[in-house]
Amino acid sequence: MRELSRASGVRTALSIAGALSIATTGASQTPLRLQSPNGRHVVQVDVADGVARYAVQRDGRAIVLPSNLGFLFRGAPVLGALRVITSTRAERDTSWIQPWGETGRVRDHHRELRLRLAESAPPAREIVVVFRAFDDGVAFRYELPSQPGLADFEIEEELTEFVLADNSKAWWIPANRPAMDRYEMLYASSPVSMLDTVRTPLTLEMQGGPVVVLHEAHLEDYAAMDLARVGERTFRPALAPWADGVKVRGRTPFVTPWRTIQLADRPADLVPSVLGLKLNPPSRISDTRWIRPMTYNGIWWGMHAGVYTWPAGPKHGATTANAKRYIDFAAANRLGGTLVEGWNIGWDGDWIGTYGRNFSFTQPYPDYDLRAVAEYARAKGVSLIAHNETAMGLDHYEQQLDSAFALYRQLGISQIKTGYVNDRTAEGHAHTGQRMVRHFRTVIETAARYGITVNAHEPIMDTGERRTWPNMLSREGARGGEYNAGGPDGGNPPEHETILFFTRLLAGPMDYTPGIFDILLRRPTGIGRTPDQPRVRTTLAKQLALYVVLWSPVQMAADLIENYDAQPAFQFVRDVAVDWDSTVVVDGKIGDYVVVARRAKGSGDWFIGAITDEESRTFDVPLSFLPPGVAMTAQVYADGPTAHWLTNPLPVTISSTPVTRASRLRLRLAPGGGQAIRISKRRTHTR
Amino acid sequence: MRELSRASGVRTALSIAGALSIATTGASQTPLRLQSPNGRHVVQVDVADGVARYAVQRDGRAIVLPSNLGFLFRGAPVLGALRVITSTRAERDTSWIQPWGETGRVRDHHRELRLRLAESAPPAREIVVVFRAFDDGVAFRYELPSQPGLADFEIEEELTEFVLADNSKAWWIPANRPAMDRYEMLYASSPVSMLDTVRTPLTLEMQGGPVVVLHEAHLEDYAAMDLARVGERTFRPALAPWADGVKVRGRTPFVTPWRTIQLADRPADLVPSVLGLKLNPPSRISDTRWIRPMTYNGIWWGMHAGVYTWPAGPKHGATTANAKRYIDFAAANRLGGTLVEGWNIGWDGDWIGTYGRNFSFTQPYPDYDLRAVAEYARAKGVSLIAHNETAMGLDHYEQQLDSAFALYRQLGISQIKTGYVNDRTAEGHAHTGQRMVRHFRTVIETAARYGITVNAHEPIMDTGERRTWPNMLSREGARGGEYNAGGPDGGNPPEHETILFFTRLLAGPMDYTPGIFDILLRRPTGIGRTPDQPRVRTTLAKQLALYVVLWSPVQMAADLIENYDAQPAFQFVRDVAVDWDSTVVVDGKIGDYVVVARRAKGSGDWFIGAITDEESRTFDVPLSFLPPGVAMTAQVYADGPTAHWLTNPLPVTISSTPVTRASRLRLRLAPGGGQAIRISKRRTHTR
Repeated sequence: MRELSRASGVRTALSIAGALSIATTGASQTPLRLQSPNGRHVVQVDVADGVARYAVQRDGRAIVLPSNLGFLFRGAPVLGALRVITSTRAERDTSWIQPWGETGRVRDHHRELRLRLAESAPPAREIVVVFRAFDDGVAFRYELPSQPGLADFEIEEELTEFVLADNSKAWWIPANRPAMDRYEMLYASSPVSMLDTVRTPLTLEMQGGPVVVLHEAHLEDYAAMDLARVGERTFRPALAPWADGVKVRGRTPFVTPWRTIQLADRPADLVPSVLGLKLNPPSRISDTRWIRPMTYNGIWWGMHAGVYTWPAGPKHGATTANAKRYIDFAAANRLGGTLVEGWNIGWDGDWIGTYGRNFSFTQPYPDYDLRAVAEYARAKGVSLIAHNETAMGLDHYEQQLDSAFALYRQLGISQIKTGYVNDRTAEGHAHTGQRMVRHFRTVIETAARYGITVNAHEPIMDTGERRTWPNMLSREGARGGEYNAGGPDGGNPPEHETILFFTRLLAGPMDYTPGIFDILLRRPTGIGRTPDQPRVRTTLAKQLALYVVLWSPVQMAADLIENYDAQPAFQFVRDVAVDWDSTVVVDGKIGDYVVVARRAKGSGDWFIGAITDEESRTFDVPLSFLPPGVAMTAQVYADGPTAHWLTNPLPVTISSTPVTRASRLRLRLAPGGGQAIRISKRRTHTR
Repeated sequence: MRELSRASGVRTALSIAGALSIATTGASQTPLRLQSPNGRHVVQVDVADGVARYAVQRDGRAIVLPSNLGFLFRGAPVLGALRVITSTRAERDTSWIQPWGETGRVRDHHRELRLRLAESAPPAREIVVVFRAFDDGVAFRYELPSQPGLADFEIEEELTEFVLADNSKAWWIPANRPAMDRYEMLYASSPVSMLDTVRTPLTLEMQGGPVVVLHEAHLEDYAAMDLARVGERTFRPALAPWADGVKVRGRTPFVTPWRTIQLADRPADLVPSVLGLKLNPPSRISDTRWIRPMTYNGIWWGMHAGVYTWPAGPKHGATTANAKRYIDFAAANRLGGTLVEGWNIGWDGDWIGTYGRNFSFTQPYPDYDLRAVAEYARAKGVSLIAHNETAMGLDHYEQQLDSAFALYRQLGISQIKTGYVNDRTAEGHAHTGQRMVRHFRTVIETAARYGITVNAHEPIMDTGERRTWPNMLSREGARGGEYNAGGPDGGNPPEHETILFFTRLLAGPMDYTPGIFDILLRRPTGIGRTPDQPRVRTTLAKQLALYVVLWSPVQMAADLIENYDAQPAFQFVRDVAVDWDSTVVVDGKIGDYVVVARRAKGSGDWFIGAITDEESRTFDVPLSFLPPGVAMTAQVYADGPTAHWLTNPLPVTISSTPVTRASRLRLRLAPGGGQAIRISKRRTHTR
């Protein structure tokens, strides 16, 4: 029996407020409506009984029911009854070219409603709420204007609500596990009424309706937003705190990040996801030609697989000789860069517990001749990537930023990979709190000044920074391929990447580190791992497909280079692009499969990546996205006829076939399998 | 970055113990192996270093890695080092006919290994562990023999482990929410490493491997078992406690429930699920002819929908006249019974907060003439079903059991529906703890003595009681159809029942209460509900299909009887069987769809039920299960061509077609839809 009431058997209240029929209390309080350019999205804003609320509809169906807006400030009175002072409207339509990404041109066409609200009684504080309606979603943010009653402030809670109109199926990772405050979780799915506190982007499949993605954009000087369920279908921002519990410190004038609600008919229509880009300021880097997307290799997987160590010692990975070996491989295979981890002193002892206080970002271990390696890389035309693990010792890192970046610039090192392994800063601030958000910006901006690009691990989640700072190339911020090398839970399940595509990757690119060819991790022991042990849970062809599916302007060829010896399938890793001017999702179902086609910038080659979960699947893909009247060749890397991620992951069938835009390709994917295809104008060679 | 170690960057331990290579420490401690009759399942038991462990393999692949066995007793020393005293083996092969169910004959063919263990040092307590290996799974339980060192005991924790060999996808409901201690949750799915404490049956889909269901059998005098995750992939029983925190009280000799691990290649092969029946004692009721499966209607949905009230008053549902109206409908439509809720005094005021202390189980409200209604029902050949809501006031109910059941017997009332709406007993014992388990048995056995069958809501989960006590007909124990009438989260999502079939229903039958024809709940307001409000989220054809899919020997035609007026589709509810001698799962995928065929006991009619989640689906069903050489007629209740659960739920296309076992039927299901088919030898009439 459903419990109807504690007081009696009589039902006390039937439900929920009905849709959008908001009552108004005064002439100046009439609900205000804002429509997207295509008319499908409507934001309705109302201020009634002193409370400001917004609601969102798509095609007339409620998406967000009337939901409160507001703040609770620390050491200040609760926000009193609000009234509308002015409301202004705008419409904008601009386009620009992203220097790299999933798509070339981005068009920002939106309508805006700006609402000045003020308390009806002293201190008569003023808050501006700005709504924008796009054809791909809606967004809003708060502005706190400079004013006598509100100068320095501390936010105790942001009282924004998201009252979902539907008990949608959510794809979520929890946010309330202090032992893992860095997004590296496997996903669960359930009705939203089962959630506790979760991360964003939060992807929701409405029952019989659109897909909805809750996230934020332009996170610059605020705490990152998780979502806490505070009612059956009601969420509120859970902001990562400073050590003293304050969520956000600021001084007016101040703007918050945008709260974004991306909307699409089907999951496949969510990609390419550019709503966040439209809500970030334009690029601050005028000449971006020095920013180069690339595939890279590196001394890294060896540490996870147990072949190498980060600290110096008998198995030290970052030796001069080994680095040159990786650089040689990169040069020989036309990869753009080589990452070296464990090159700098400080890895010995408890670097996590001490928040990395022994890390130097300039001084190499004695067996690693930084200058010689950098010179060698430069001579070979390979970009050496410097690793900067901070262990969340932010002050310690910031003190060295200028000297380190100056050295890197001097040595021709134009890319860093940062790391933030720890759950709090050395001072106890939350991993995703305002302190870290500020630090994250400092690193990006400092790097830009020195002509350095950034690939951040254990990062702040992507909120569209790459529009303003296109040197912010990629990041981790999800459970990556590294979990296949070790850890107690056995690696990433076959469905994992089919979920990432529709969740984490909607925020922005991810450095997932695909390309593991030694699926069973025979190295270093020589013995393949058993199904209960951590190992890669894909076929080899799926490892290739991940380069196309999980986009990133920097993609790692992550395996030990010796595992690429005599591997014909490695040709795809050599060939695959990392920068796209067009992306077409052919088909996709969250947790089941993805088929995506992308056009490489420059060459005009098309690449198709198809991945599946544990089920074998066949897709019939029309190539209507190809240019008309051009004879092309598809080079296909398919699962072998008997391939199976568990029992027989390695067989890859490589074939070439002539195609035109009238062709259809039949893609057969093995259980846990994938398929990777390059379509180019000239005949591609097979080895 | 995955965190490798707090002490250094060096990986400290690669993983997990490898499969089943258990080391032995002495000649008498050799691992013992137990194989299922078909040889596919192997249980390996080892006692090494004083610790007893078991492991389970299927087809050579590890299912459960070596897992500890044992107990922590309160007020007694921790169990010391164990050694094996004796081990004995047995093989048994017996069959019997269940008086009702999903299948007629049940065969129990198993091999058994019985291990006597004792502490090597005083108090030298002795524990017996009994393993059984079946072709459909394995099971084990503990026996505590009578002995000087162990007489009266209190179990603080059961230390049994389930170390899963795989980070399987689990379909789960949480168990650790004290505000809802009665299984009525929507399901989530995720890798097991994401779980906290969950309910059983817990259904797991291993990556690339079999499906595994963890549950228990023969719960008679113990606390019900939830599963708490205590390691990355390790679970331990979480036993619902007495008010003082003790989990189980007992006196030797004592046996625990069986811990069961059901195994199958595919989810579809889990049904019919009879492992639990095989682990319960044979029937204690010799002549079961008085136990009659039936479809019933009743005064119940009206309370949830806001038409009636439980307490007397202007909208009182249980009036003499209304009860007769429902009985008339049952008689006219050949339904077996009529339930009346709210007939007895005690519903006024806070019946939950007072643990139902005002409930009488014999005294009706003044406007309900119990004797007249009972007489009327008897005259019409309809079984009157008495409702006994206890609000967990167990003592209060037990005090009235004999007088109430004697009255019911006298009045010809041979069925009760019990209710246990509360999270604890009046004394503070957990809802699923040993006190309630004992009570549950008391009610079943007392009812049997009075010739009464039981349908329990907010019950103890089914652990196979129906073998021993076939008067225990059905129960709730999951989130039923009632959630579509109200509550803040909007009703059961379209996928819900496709999950129940592979989870809750594996334990035993469920009184789901299908058959709501007023999908949009136009009554009582006259206005259909909007998508954000609670309503039925299926098509009408799917409501019919649920009678076949979600099996129960008592199935409710749950809607207000006036909603069945002039409804041709109601013919299926009249016709559908509730007792089956054969069940064939044609196809099924957890959370997506189910197609099941069942043969009605007696008539030999076959019924097919097919349901889908939000996706429309088409199935091609070969009727090879039909008898050879017989011309039959399929009466088909299909979703209309434009049906859709959200936008157009009502269209049902009813048609007849001749079929034989060589035929194939093409089933087209709308989004959120279903199909119900009756196949009978004679031509069935259409209205």
